[in-house]
Amino acid sequence: MNIEKILSQTVLNSWKSVTERASALIAQLSEEQIQSEIAPGRNRVIYIVGHLTAVSDRMFPLLGVGERRFPNLDTVYIEHPDRAEADPLAPADLKVAWQDLTTRLTDALEAFTPEEWLQKHTSVSDADFAKDPARNRMAVVLTRTNHISYHIGQLMLAVSP
Amino acid sequence: MNIEKILSQTVLNSWKSVTERASALIAQLSEEQIQSEIAPGRNRVIYIVGHLTAVSDRMFPLLGVGERRFPNLDTVYIEHPDRAEADPLAPADLKVAWQDLTTRLTDALEAFTPEEWLQKHTSVSDADFAKDPARNRMAVVLTRTNHISYHIGQLMLAVSP
Repeated sequence: MNIEKILSQTVLNSWKSVTERASALIAQLSEEQIQSEIAPGRNRVIYIVGHLTAVSDRMFPLLGVGERRFPNLDTVYIEHPDRAEADPLAPADLKVAWQDLTTRLTDALEAFTPEEWLQKHTSVSDADFAKDPARNRMAVVLTRTNHISYHIGQLMLAVSP
Repeated sequence: MNIEKILSQTVLNSWKSVTERASALIAQLSEEQIQSEIAPGRNRVIYIVGHLTAVSDRMFPLLGVGERRFPNLDTVYIEHPDRAEADPLAPADLKVAWQDLTTRLTDALEAFTPEEWLQKHTSVSDADFAKDPARNRMAVVLTRTNHISYHIGQLMLAVSP
């Protein structure tokens, strides 16, 4: 493998490691756990899972790898705080949505060449991208990997005694 | 910039973004906040800050960029759960230690060439590294960046109303 291929693979491994941890955690949530709060008066687990699912869904157009599947999650899980609106999906369906999106995203990332990793994402202008080539697809994936890690830290409070 | 340089810069940006967020959060902790728990019965803020500081300190030998400065933090903040031992540093000194280590680590990472990013870290054997060249310094930095994000998600519970 050449240098840029190893670099890309290392970043992909990080995405896979974090999403696998999140998926294992989400899949094992009991009905009671998913409805619980991560701490008294804080976000419910289902709100955080919905939030992560909505953010992953938005990655498809942002990375230019496909259409969104769950745009109706944004109002509830991105634009509003927890409990402002009714949950649009049943917990079991939300779990399936998370896993489906994660699998599809990982498949898309697996197919990127180093050059494709470095293409601009769709929310940066050509002019800004010319000034800063680090505003690329890899930057989006790293930001989202950190975002998932941030919320795993919170979800762990609901599942660990 | 060539491809491998942009890839390395993108990963470095992610490290910097997350550590800057952690540093801002840690610096602004009041004396009351740093002694508080992130949620009732959970880890104290100072334990998490001590834990992050100890883990960052361990990165120096792991990346081969210098000696540890605070090896005495491990017993309290890595090997034992919260409240098992007395805090070895006053909160103000712990804040300084975190910031000092973060600045030094970032300086070391800024100096890496793409080839240096891909050198093996010191806890993987030559044989294992030959089999999997993705077990490199960049993998360590990505894992630690996610680890910091994980705990920022928890610290936010202590500082946001």
